[in-house]
Amino acid sequence: MRVPEEIISYLKEKDDFLIATHINPEGDALGSSIALSIALESIGKKVIVYDRDPVPYFYRFLPGHERFTNSIPDLVHPIPNLILLDCNDPERADLTDFVRKHQPFMVVIDHHETEREFGDIRWIVPNASATGQMIFHLIRALGINISSEIATNLYTAIAIDTGTFRYSNTDASTLLDASELVMAGAEPAFIATSLYDTWSRGRFELLILTLNTMEIRQGIAITVVTKEMFQKTGTDASDTENFANFPRMMSDVKISAFFREIEGGWKVSLRSKGDINVAEIAEAFGGGGHRNAAGYKIEGSLLEAKESLIREIKDRGAGLHGW
Amino acid sequence: MRVPEEIISYLKEKDDFLIATHINPEGDALGSSIALSIALESIGKKVIVYDRDPVPYFYRFLPGHERFTNSIPDLVHPIPNLILLDCNDPERADLTDFVRKHQPFMVVIDHHETEREFGDIRWIVPNASATGQMIFHLIRALGINISSEIATNLYTAIAIDTGTFRYSNTDASTLLDASELVMAGAEPAFIATSLYDTWSRGRFELLILTLNTMEIRQGIAITVVTKEMFQKTGTDASDTENFANFPRMMSDVKISAFFREIEGGWKVSLRSKGDINVAEIAEAFGGGGHRNAAGYKIEGSLLEAKESLIREIKDRGAGLHGW
Repeated sequence: MRVPEEIISYLKEKDDFLIATHINPEGDALGSSIALSIALESIGKKVIVYDRDPVPYFYRFLPGHERFTNSIPDLVHPIPNLILLDCNDPERADLTDFVRKHQPFMVVIDHHETEREFGDIRWIVPNASATGQMIFHLIRALGINISSEIATNLYTAIAIDTGTFRYSNTDASTLLDASELVMAGAEPAFIATSLYDTWSRGRFELLILTLNTMEIRQGIAITVVTKEMFQKTGTDASDTENFANFPRMMSDVKISAFFREIEGGWKVSLRSKGDINVAEIAEAFGGGGHRNAAGYKIEGSLLEAKESLIREIKDRGAGLHGW
Repeated sequence: MRVPEEIISYLKEKDDFLIATHINPEGDALGSSIALSIALESIGKKVIVYDRDPVPYFYRFLPGHERFTNSIPDLVHPIPNLILLDCNDPERADLTDFVRKHQPFMVVIDHHETEREFGDIRWIVPNASATGQMIFHLIRALGINISSEIATNLYTAIAIDTGTFRYSNTDASTLLDASELVMAGAEPAFIATSLYDTWSRGRFELLILTLNTMEIRQGIAITVVTKEMFQKTGTDASDTENFANFPRMMSDVKISAFFREIEGGWKVSLRSKGDINVAEIAEAFGGGGHRNAAGYKIEGSLLEAKESLIREIKDRGAGLHGW
């Protein structure tokens, strides 16, 4: 992976950075942000790491997670340099006002493809398995030592975005970089246990309730979580991470659609197998994502939301590549 | 990993090999055996690959799985060279009679530690993640090209034995070797999907029914599957493989106990975390297994079976190492 020369020289020359990532951050967003902040501080730079939302409790095993601040501090002088990670739009980081007010120089580093052209420097690598993989190459290109804290964060970023090397974004370079991160101190079993075997009892009960809602229609597995189910189990939206993946275990399920109740409607998470592109479907509803993992929001009743999705998939029919 | 010189020269010099592995073979046993047989044939050797049991249906995605024979052919002259893979005792390969009768030269290649000293040449590497990883180094040391068929078999062997790089046997060399196998043609997503995402709908429905039976008592998660549930979902005992592992996802679950109804009683599968030794508990009921995965059979009602287990665990209390 070639790291653009302009990013390297920019990071070396400037100081006073605001690293920010998307709201509702997951492992790649968190790990990438923490790792880059540790790296930049290690060469004497001033860095603030921001996310609107708190670090979910099950990501608090990440060394350095306490670096995150959830409010932009009262600034005597504005932070001149904004680095957006795993996110290519200030709106997704809830920084629209900040950007409008302070007009920082903006660097965008992401592995999600994008239509809008935000950023003064843009580094987008759609075939990187995770933003964390890009940050690994960036930190190395900066000549900074990969400490075990950095390695743990970046390995976690790659592990979660590839399902520990199970998804189609895993290639030889992913495994090679993971191997080097282990040599630098990341512990695969500790990270996997932290990611997958530390569910709260409420979260597991929520999963069971969710699976009980499952219906399968034309290869589409639909599951639902309602506000009532959150209340009953003492859980919240962050506990549903990964829920959409479970129905994919079935060989005859091509798409898993997970509906989560939000104010006035539903957040729909889509997961697909192989060549089936759910990003196209999500885009039809104003959302987005990757080929095998995408999502959107929709207003209205659950029944309407389900039917509109089924209709959209049906209409695309043979047009859905790989269907 | 250093491959013993005597194995390399032995395989180069000799011909007419019987490759065999343990009964009830899983991915490491199968992948290692198929890969080595393809490799040896590619340099003109005669090879028979044997297992007493057929290749399970969910491993028939492995290229070359049809090489396995389940009966030792009527031999005009006996096969002089036996290579035992992922297995260090002819008895575990159901070859006791064959060995006694023909007294072949015996090579043992395994990553399981062993007490008995079988084999004329023994190559045991307990810190190899899988026998497949050892075979990868052996084939390379023989100077044989790693074809994509060989790579797929060896990657599968490593993937299943490490839970796709989640278990504590994963180290930097595991990931590095996996990376090279991908470069040689193994496809991580295809292999992971073949291993994990090929459940029948009935099997998934059985899992949901099973999870609905869950009760948690003093850190012990109890789940149950009855004959009625098998009937309702059109499934059988083989579909419950891995069910006992799901409750381990919860951080406060120390032991998962899965009760499967059998004639006149119950088959109990125990899974534990870390240092908790469930083999000791299973042995108290006349069963056995490993530290983190063991089982036993018990007669009587479900209520009696549950209570006797809870009592046994309670009685051992602090005596349960790691509790």
